[in-house]
Amino acid sequence: MEIVLLGSGNVATHLATALNEAGYRIVQLYSRTMRNAELLASKVGAEPVERVDTRYRAADFYIFSVKDAALPEIVSQMPPTTGIWVHTAGSVPLSALSPHKERGVLYPLQTFSKERELDLRDIPFFIEGESSATIAMLNELVKSISEKVFLLSGDKRRLLHLAAVFASNFTNHMYTLASEIMDEEGLQFFLLHPLIAETAAKAMTMDPHAAQTGPALRFDEEVIKKHLDLLSDPMKKELYALLSKSIHKRSSEQCVGRNYRP
Amino acid sequence: MEIVLLGSGNVATHLATALNEAGYRIVQLYSRTMRNAELLASKVGAEPVERVDTRYRAADFYIFSVKDAALPEIVSQMPPTTGIWVHTAGSVPLSALSPHKERGVLYPLQTFSKERELDLRDIPFFIEGESSATIAMLNELVKSISEKVFLLSGDKRRLLHLAAVFASNFTNHMYTLASEIMDEEGLQFFLLHPLIAETAAKAMTMDPHAAQTGPALRFDEEVIKKHLDLLSDPMKKELYALLSKSIHKRSSEQCVGRNYRP
Repeated sequence: MEIVLLGSGNVATHLATALNEAGYRIVQLYSRTMRNAELLASKVGAEPVERVDTRYRAADFYIFSVKDAALPEIVSQMPPTTGIWVHTAGSVPLSALSPHKERGVLYPLQTFSKERELDLRDIPFFIEGESSATIAMLNELVKSISEKVFLLSGDKRRLLHLAAVFASNFTNHMYTLASEIMDEEGLQFFLLHPLIAETAAKAMTMDPHAAQTGPALRFDEEVIKKHLDLLSDPMKKELYALLSKSIHKRSSEQCVGRNYRP
Repeated sequence: MEIVLLGSGNVATHLATALNEAGYRIVQLYSRTMRNAELLASKVGAEPVERVDTRYRAADFYIFSVKDAALPEIVSQMPPTTGIWVHTAGSVPLSALSPHKERGVLYPLQTFSKERELDLRDIPFFIEGESSATIAMLNELVKSISEKVFLLSGDKRRLLHLAAVFASNFTNHMYTLASEIMDEEGLQFFLLHPLIAETAAKAMTMDPHAAQTGPALRFDEEVIKKHLDLLSDPMKKELYALLSKSIHKRSSEQCVGRNYRP
């Protein structure tokens, strides 16, 4: 089975390595930056290219793993080929790969960084395909690298991606803001590690609504005011206020009849 | 060594159990709700009371583990005693326990829920005391339940607490919002578990600034717009926009000279 991979970012890097290990042959690897194409291509024995070219028109899969915004241009440059065209984006519809007929999506629900090794086996992949034949082929491809393959429509995938932005991108931003506050005081970030680990562990064993703790939940106005006074960065201040409001809103909705203010 | 514990909330519950197991005798347990006092007192063999009383005036420690807002009233009701008075709050100064002279703070940096068992050994505790004698006594007390005891001033503790609100309370709220989005679509929250676990694991092995991924970092305007359109809840929409702005601000500051817009 031959694959042409278009992209050399975080997702492309992890996919290339895993598919190569699963026995697929990555024949060509495209990146708009030759250095990136070469770097990844050398790891998986592919030919690096910095322009979409016409040499491989009979691969089994053409996997587009590029920034959403870059996809239309790359698709428009593609020659007609056999095989299945697949993209890996959460919020891009299947139709973005038209006019090619045999098209599909494989969306891994994970945060990828090149520097960090990951076992893809435990990562849920969500696939979508134009036809049942495409879906069957995609299913086989993805099953070779993950044990968790789900069929999901594009409409649901968009919402899954949106939930993932909250659960991961925004969560990591909370860690970032915490690390900045610690840095400013000369407090080491590792002191927060047990707290970060336990907060994540709780959310995986309890309903996160029930796991919520802290001044905003208790509507502890004094602490909230003190914290706002301590924050000199206007953006952190605005975020603190809005997040506290949002936490408190849920707690007061759940606690009608208790001693909470509206 | 005898302890009077005032409070029956999440922190008080975990402290009572751990101190009891470490061989301290909790002689009396106060809660303004008798049922809560009884529930926790029965676990550690203490006498439950729903009013601050004057029977135990010669305990070694009086630990106040109540809501910040409730502390002043309880302190004002206390009779003169021997021993050390201690509170457990991140954002309350040591002086809140005056006029008692031998006073201190023990602040565990963790998120506690009664339902969830926790090994306190790995949890960092931050202590503060009015005198070196008090600090030595407190250090001994806390070392009996945790291996990580640090001396920290009240000013730094407030900032640590503020960082913890971001790293834990606000992070958990992100999980909550993600779970609501999943629920609305009939998607099960457990699908996000590997993502949540990896996001936390990354922040503990990489600088969270470097670990950031997602549409806001890439300034992928189309995805951001789509996501905002998908969110019908005005509060989620406002949070999404503000968090994306904050993430993008950092990325553009780090990427001056790259192809990012200001």
